[in-house]
Amino acid sequence: MNNYIESNKERFLEELFSLMRIPSVSSDPDRKDDMRKCADRWVELLLSSGADNATVLPTKGNPVVYGEKMISPELPTVLIYSHYDVMPAAPLELWKTSPFEPVVKDGKIWGRGADDDKGQAMIQAKAFETVVKNGELKCNVKFLFEGEEEIGSPSLEKFCIENKELLKSDIILVSDTGMVAEDVPSITTGLRGLCYWQIEVTGPSHDLHSGIYGGGVANPINELCKMIAQMTNSDGKITVPGFYDDVVNVSYEERKLMSKVPFDENKYMTELNVKALTGEKGYSTTERTTIRPSFDVCGIWGGYTQDGAKTVLPSKAYAKISTRIVPGQDSEKIAKLVADYIKKVAPQYIDVKVEYLHGGESYLCPIDLPAYKAAEAAVEKVFNKKPVPVRRGGSIPIVASFEKILGVKSILLGFGLESDDIHAPNENFQVSMFEKGIKTVVEFYKEFSK
Amino acid sequence: MNNYIESNKERFLEELFSLMRIPSVSSDPDRKDDMRKCADRWVELLLSSGADNATVLPTKGNPVVYGEKMISPELPTVLIYSHYDVMPAAPLELWKTSPFEPVVKDGKIWGRGADDDKGQAMIQAKAFETVVKNGELKCNVKFLFEGEEEIGSPSLEKFCIENKELLKSDIILVSDTGMVAEDVPSITTGLRGLCYWQIEVTGPSHDLHSGIYGGGVANPINELCKMIAQMTNSDGKITVPGFYDDVVNVSYEERKLMSKVPFDENKYMTELNVKALTGEKGYSTTERTTIRPSFDVCGIWGGYTQDGAKTVLPSKAYAKISTRIVPGQDSEKIAKLVADYIKKVAPQYIDVKVEYLHGGESYLCPIDLPAYKAAEAAVEKVFNKKPVPVRRGGSIPIVASFEKILGVKSILLGFGLESDDIHAPNENFQVSMFEKGIKTVVEFYKEFSK
Repeated sequence: MNNYIESNKERFLEELFSLMRIPSVSSDPDRKDDMRKCADRWVELLLSSGADNATVLPTKGNPVVYGEKMISPELPTVLIYSHYDVMPAAPLELWKTSPFEPVVKDGKIWGRGADDDKGQAMIQAKAFETVVKNGELKCNVKFLFEGEEEIGSPSLEKFCIENKELLKSDIILVSDTGMVAEDVPSITTGLRGLCYWQIEVTGPSHDLHSGIYGGGVANPINELCKMIAQMTNSDGKITVPGFYDDVVNVSYEERKLMSKVPFDENKYMTELNVKALTGEKGYSTTERTTIRPSFDVCGIWGGYTQDGAKTVLPSKAYAKISTRIVPGQDSEKIAKLVADYIKKVAPQYIDVKVEYLHGGESYLCPIDLPAYKAAEAAVEKVFNKKPVPVRRGGSIPIVASFEKILGVKSILLGFGLESDDIHAPNENFQVSMFEKGIKTVVEFYKEFSK
Repeated sequence: MNNYIESNKERFLEELFSLMRIPSVSSDPDRKDDMRKCADRWVELLLSSGADNATVLPTKGNPVVYGEKMISPELPTVLIYSHYDVMPAAPLELWKTSPFEPVVKDGKIWGRGADDDKGQAMIQAKAFETVVKNGELKCNVKFLFEGEEEIGSPSLEKFCIENKELLKSDIILVSDTGMVAEDVPSITTGLRGLCYWQIEVTGPSHDLHSGIYGGGVANPINELCKMIAQMTNSDGKITVPGFYDDVVNVSYEERKLMSKVPFDENKYMTELNVKALTGEKGYSTTERTTIRPSFDVCGIWGGYTQDGAKTVLPSKAYAKISTRIVPGQDSEKIAKLVADYIKKVAPQYIDVKVEYLHGGESYLCPIDLPAYKAAEAAVEKVFNKKPVPVRRGGSIPIVASFEKILGVKSILLGFGLESDDIHAPNENFQVSMFEKGIKTVVEFYKEFSK
């Protein structure tokens, strides 16, 4: 097995690069052609990796890539889920290499999608290829790669509902998460959910001279700041009434276990270059970023934002705000609670529109599932350490939907590292993790088919 | 006199258009050539209007245009001050006509600078021309048009200090203000001052994934909003300690007089399309916008601001904030107070930079000055009503500097109307006010030289 990977690894990287060169940014409406190009490229790659058939299937949004190798209806089926879309590269000026011209440097693959999720999807494709080419595949394999994960998978639920038979499987394998560290291997057992809104505040119907009108007319930026400021309090709690009502509190025992996973606060602060950490009172940084909800303004804009000084009292101000939610919380309910709250606290002298852009539920995986045990054994074999089960702060909303619609649990076996800077400038993926990932998934097939 | 204006008014407009077509946006470093082009055009126009000489004089920033017609050292001298720079046109999409392609429509001149201040400067030039061509000039006239008014006149104080003799005069005439209404003529007797800062908040050193880090690391936009929110309170007061200490409170008698100037609150709200007004408790809208300080965020930006949803915890957030200040307050003192306060309230887990971009003092003109009396009589003659003295909320910081450096008072005889939308999209200037302005300044020369 290792021979096959060793002698083909340059080609594996080249194939990954061919995907990364396609700027499949799902949030950019001008990238529709690139989405299709990336999906078509995946069809070629799945076929050359050993799939019996692979095709692009339409959805109401970007198409999904489906591929399969069905050995026998008697054997269990693994459904591999990933996504071929990526986050926007902005702000471009902060990239040290060009985001869509991948390179290997200092033992890392650099470029948008290197990890999230083209690199990790390629791990799945190349592990599958290795098992097939070695004649060792003993289960059915299906691939489902969507093109809208980074915008909240708006079409995939409907696709799952309409294609239950096609997607029938025993376990779903998802490589879209990370490990604590290369020497602290881990498997993700919990994910946060997400709600994302855009707020538009309108003051006067047109931009005004701040000298002539300043003090007499509400300024939409001043007001937006006040509204955002009052959504959290000095204890780091979200102040929206009812927000925490359904949160399932994590037991003392589980929190104690969590605290044993290595976490170097000084290193964390050094990497982020911050002088201090903050967050919800009564919780550790690990807890704040995994088992507790959070509130972040992801973007804000309004008025004059160019060079120099323009004395304007603007007409409009905007913000993109998001919360991460945790097991127990329902995204639709939170979406409404927050929107209602914003409208309630908005003063009568401004107009406020709240648009719910997307959301998704949190997820929990039991660690006594046979497929989890198989993943655990596979990781231990390659990393020489038993992986720790960890909860993660990110969201893969579709994982909760798979359970609801297809009735199938997912194993979150991912190979990213904190330093990969996914969603940010200079996204990268460690070549060693890419290779270990392929080996681990190969081992997973063996363990799973025992 | 009226004959000359009547038979030349088409040419007057054409000459104004020739200035408006030059995008002399002083805050845009790419417009340096246009600044010079506009200054050169003014030299041509001043000479053709009757100045004996006119020239472009260097400053450390954009040059000033100087022109003069000296009849006799025995006669008093009027110094005309205006500016040839304009505000940026952004946001361009809200303009109904092209900002730098002036047109006359519905009795108004449309385009950037139509009023502020190319239109008003042209009133001065063409009134001067009319008096000269009719052989009626009985005083010396000097012109001083600067190219940096809209960015706070950073070079003009030094120019005044170095050119005291050149600028020697008995009164300064400034047309950069407005009237209450065409049928409520007024002369501005007070102006607010200004302070303008840019704030830069840094959280983590690079953009982060809001799922992985959200809740554990300070978000610079969340924090910037909190800092801005706490700069004013629910009474509409600015909370910076010491901010109001030096404000000279306006007497009950003057406030009573002010309240008699017609102000239609419903019309005001309708024009701005707001459902309610707000501001400092205990003061009327007119007072809030003229004799009281104000605090406005002129611009804010940070994080992801394009289409769709990017789940990012950004590294940086920025705001441009300003206060209008009133007689008694010193801009340098306020600049420091506010910067110190921002740094004081900034939590330790973020970095905050406060840059003071510019500022200027407020101004008060006594209404018993002979030159004020001359202006009052001139307005009455053309508008058939005695003008009311009013305070204005805008700032012309250099007016306070003229008094300090040159020891000369300014008369703020301006012809703009509220509906002119200066500094905003669709700036315009009523043709009737343009013509009445020329006639009024012609009358001013007669009254002043009596």
